[in-house]
Amino acid sequence: MSNACIALLSDFGSRDVYVGVMKGVIGRIAPQARLIDLTHEIPPGDVRQAAFRLWQAFPFMPPGTIFLAVVDPGVGTTRRPLAVRCQGFTCVGPDNGIFTYLLEGRNDVRAVEISQLDALLEGAARTKSGTFHGRDLFAPAAGLLAMGTDLEKLGREAPDLVRVPLPRLLYSDFEKTVHGQMLLADRFGNMVTSIGVLVSTGDVVRLEPWLPGCPRLTLPASRLRVRLGNGTELPLLRTFAQAPSGAPLAYIGSDGLLEIGVNEGSAADLLTLAPGSQVSLAWN
Amino acid sequence: MSNACIALLSDFGSRDVYVGVMKGVIGRIAPQARLIDLTHEIPPGDVRQAAFRLWQAFPFMPPGTIFLAVVDPGVGTTRRPLAVRCQGFTCVGPDNGIFTYLLEGRNDVRAVEISQLDALLEGAARTKSGTFHGRDLFAPAAGLLAMGTDLEKLGREAPDLVRVPLPRLLYSDFEKTVHGQMLLADRFGNMVTSIGVLVSTGDVVRLEPWLPGCPRLTLPASRLRVRLGNGTELPLLRTFAQAPSGAPLAYIGSDGLLEIGVNEGSAADLLTLAPGSQVSLAWN
Amino acid sequence: MSNACIALLSDFGSRDVYVGVMKGVIGRIAPQARLIDLTHEIPPGDVRQAAFRLWQAFPFMPPGTIFLAVVDPGVGTTRRPLAVRCQGFTCVGPDNGIFTYLLEGRNDVRAVEISQLDALLEGAARTKSGTFHGRDLFAPAAGLLAMGTDLEKLGREAPDLVRVPLPRLLYSDFEKTVHGQMLLADRFGNMVTSIGVLVSTGDVVRLEPWLPGCPRLTLPASRLRVRLGNGTELPLLRTFAQAPSGAPLAYIGSDGLLEIGVNEGSAADLLTLAPGSQVSLAWN
Repeated sequence: MSNACIALLSDFGSRDVYVGVMKGVIGRIAPQARLIDLTHEIPPGDVRQAAFRLWQAFPFMPPGTIFLAVVDPGVGTTRRPLAVRCQGFTCVGPDNGIFTYLLEGRNDVRAVEISQLDALLEGAARTKSGTFHGRDLFAPAAGLLAMGTDLEKLGREAPDLVRVPLPRLLYSDFEKTVHGQMLLADRFGNMVTSIGVLVSTGDVVRLEPWLPGCPRLTLPASRLRVRLGNGTELPLLRTFAQAPSGAPLAYIGSDGLLEIGVNEGSAADLLTLAPGSQVSLAWN
Repeated sequence: MSNACIALLSDFGSRDVYVGVMKGVIGRIAPQARLIDLTHEIPPGDVRQAAFRLWQAFPFMPPGTIFLAVVDPGVGTTRRPLAVRCQGFTCVGPDNGIFTYLLEGRNDVRAVEISQLDALLEGAARTKSGTFHGRDLFAPAAGLLAMGTDLEKLGREAPDLVRVPLPRLLYSDFEKTVHGQMLLADRFGNMVTSIGVLVSTGDVVRLEPWLPGCPRLTLPASRLRVRLGNGTELPLLRTFAQAPSGAPLAYIGSDGLLEIGVNEGSAADLLTLAPGSQVSLAWN
Repeated sequence: MSNACIALLSDFGSRDVYVGVMKGVIGRIAPQARLIDLTHEIPPGDVRQAAFRLWQAFPFMPPGTIFLAVVDPGVGTTRRPLAVRCQGFTCVGPDNGIFTYLLEGRNDVRAVEISQLDALLEGAARTKSGTFHGRDLFAPAAGLLAMGTDLEKLGREAPDLVRVPLPRLLYSDFEKTVHGQMLLADRFGNMVTSIGVLVSTGDVVRLEPWLPGCPRLTLPASRLRVRLGNGTELPLLRTFAQAPSGAPLAYIGSDGLLEIGVNEGSAADLLTLAPGSQVSLAWN
């Protein structure tokens, strides 16, 4: 297990040495671990975005990946430092809901509060701070887990994990509409929405709820309409280049969620969309 | 070949998890591959800059490197997904000209259209989207090639690859001048131009065309003058610190191309230069 | 030693391929070296910040790490290219003071001027430029050292290394005050100051000078006050969340230096602080 994969996500950005320091700490404990940066550009303290980003990346990481996620506005308080193991993957980070999506609906969750690093790293110099648990707690724990340390050796069982609220879908059978919202803009200005997971198969589009709260639906592809909060209707196309250059479109994004984009442009800018803006998928 | 080097270039930026997801996909197929990020900050959709960046990095990558390049505004259309092998290196990416510089003048090019991933990844879960072929086609193909899969197994031969226009040099024997243009600004505000490749050897500077269209010339080092489009003349120096602090200069850049810089400053800002601005090298 | 760790720091940013090119050069010489990026976002030419960043990261890197640091405004001049070895680590970079903090107070420093790469890389293609010694000198030297090449083979001994000025602490026994200054802002807008290293142990805070020029002191934790240059007093707390949301605080940062922050906000913005701003720690 010493060449386990550790996937890192944080709000540390790239101008400080914080990410490099975490990698150094891991490298001292688990020199052969393979490190994959998911992103370190989460807006400072935005736990909900971090939780969603982990959901986006999760299906594509190697089996057994350790997700080391540090967006931690409560660092140094009594919020618990966690290590969580499920079938096929492990999470290390603060107990603030950052793993909500990854743990949603799972019944094989074993979570511990990290408290035994002094004993486990016996003999190794350790730093302790009130403001950088990524370095002092989470990176060492991830390194130990990558080397095969049993989860239970890290500390006592941690029940009742904190959760962030999940995006909601409102389904109206009367209106024949699913109402959702914009979740975030990507680098290109494409808006990822909460409506999904959509699977297109010829004449129909299946809605297979990615999170609880919406029924499964089978919708007629040719009668679907996407509508923004201000009433603008957008065509549902397969890819950007099917819209004229500079024109907006809706499409099923690479995560299976409905997205709003502009061919060769930015939907966030052109349509002045932001996280929280409303969007709906209707049929008749 | 399982520890082959894969060099990644894209316009995905760093705030989304797209690059991390591609690395996860590679890691599932080729866990020992070594990954080198060239840049992921190509301006969205700028295939020509991407093609030039690959040319800059190419000579310094390890033998056998697989160049995984995803700047792909035509994703999801009929543009072909390519894998291209030449003596000593491999390219994976869209057929939009992104490999123009790397393939220029080579007669050992074998290109295939990637179409056989389902068979090659038999048993592995695969995603298919109309908007993220970096994840669904190019990263898996690069991973397979890194593991030694024969190029020809990926799909049928792909003739007539798309090319981007190359920068031009205009040489006037009468004027004793080579006319070129600014290609891009680097982080420091240095402007890389199309004039080169220049090799300085004592009293002479040799112009050895980096791309077709300009004769080889041997120029008298002491009589060379560099002139911007607005008429400003700049001294041709060896390095920044030979100019006064804050003063502009021309120099032979690290790629061998003529560059315009400012010692301890930004030429792009001070001289208001942008890609496409004119520049010439004259002698008498 | 072929899987040695190389920690990279530069002012190259992420939009150019300079960092990727250095990694390619290393990968050709030392394919198994593990690479850790500290940061490449040092402000262009800011050798003093680079030197401090290395100090921040140093304690957390694996034993034997090679620090490859390229912030090099004097590239191409007579400033010497250095390789420096101390007990437990190695430095490679320009002789402009970038290693001042790492070498401060050490008496086991062996420094050489890199000059023998042609002989050591015999047979390998090499480029030489006046503007990119990161690629042409420092990355190859780091690669060779990672493969076990003796330091002394790289060139002659280099005495009298250049140093950058270190931050100063002024201690006034009469005022019962230590005066320092802001060093830099991190991504969150937290200001790192020169006052430290502070170690909190119950009722007292020990000041253990991190650099020469200030006596060791033992201070009464309950009577400490932190004052900004404009007279504002800040509470000295253990972590962000002990201050109200949006309120400023002082705390002992993760490096042991006094820091100024704002809970869920930016101290740099809220208090209009910048590197060089004054700060003091007083008691009575």
